[in-house]
Amino acid sequence: AESGPPAAAGGMYGVIGKMRVQPGQRDALIAILAEGTKEMPGCLAYMIAKDKADPDALWITETWDSAASHKASLALPSVREAITKGRPLIAGFERFETEPVAGVKTR
Amino acid sequence: AESGPPAAAGGMYGVIGKMRVQPGQRDALIAILAEGTKEMPGCLAYMIAKDKADPDALWITETWDSAASHKASLALPSVREAITKGRPLIAGFERFETEPVAGVKTR
Repeated sequence: AESGPPAAAGGMYGVIGKMRVQPGQRDALIAILAEGTKEMPGCLAYMIAKDKADPDALWITETWDSAASHKASLALPSVREAITKGRPLIAGFERFETEPVAGVKTR
Repeated sequence: AESGPPAAAGGMYGVIGKMRVQPGQRDALIAILAEGTKEMPGCLAYMIAKDKADPDALWITETWDSAASHKASLALPSVREAITKGRPLIAGFERFETEPVAGVKTR
């Protein structure tokens, strides 16, 4: 199989996460996340999407130019604030780390 | 809870999918998908990412300006060809429909 050494450190870094939100709080969490993730150096995309079937589920697709950029973002005041404000609204978080390989289209 | 009527028909449409790939075929499938999904009217993003933990798993994040654009894409020759070529390499596909609400950043 193709499970050789991990992707070169230089590759893009990504996260795909499915958040379980406290009932009725999805819009509030979307606003917090959208606000807190606007200006993050190295972030190529931070996409937020409602699950169509489950009113309490929210999908996040993050694409970063490197793992280092992602790590650095966790120290940004805007991100820390979003985490503090958002955490009480999050009931669960299934999180997958990825290596983006194709496809961020400009609008 | 917030499970009111489905999002207005005018909203963006999205898909998040986790594909299980035949062992050793992930790079081949990535090439097929990347090639077949280049010119799709109404597609705002078609992001392909390798799962870091599982060498046989691949994530797709699609963002469309409407569900209609997505549906129309299935008739495009390039997409039909990718489906035909890619299908034998796909062992499973967990697919979630979404309504993107924030965050396609330009490169």
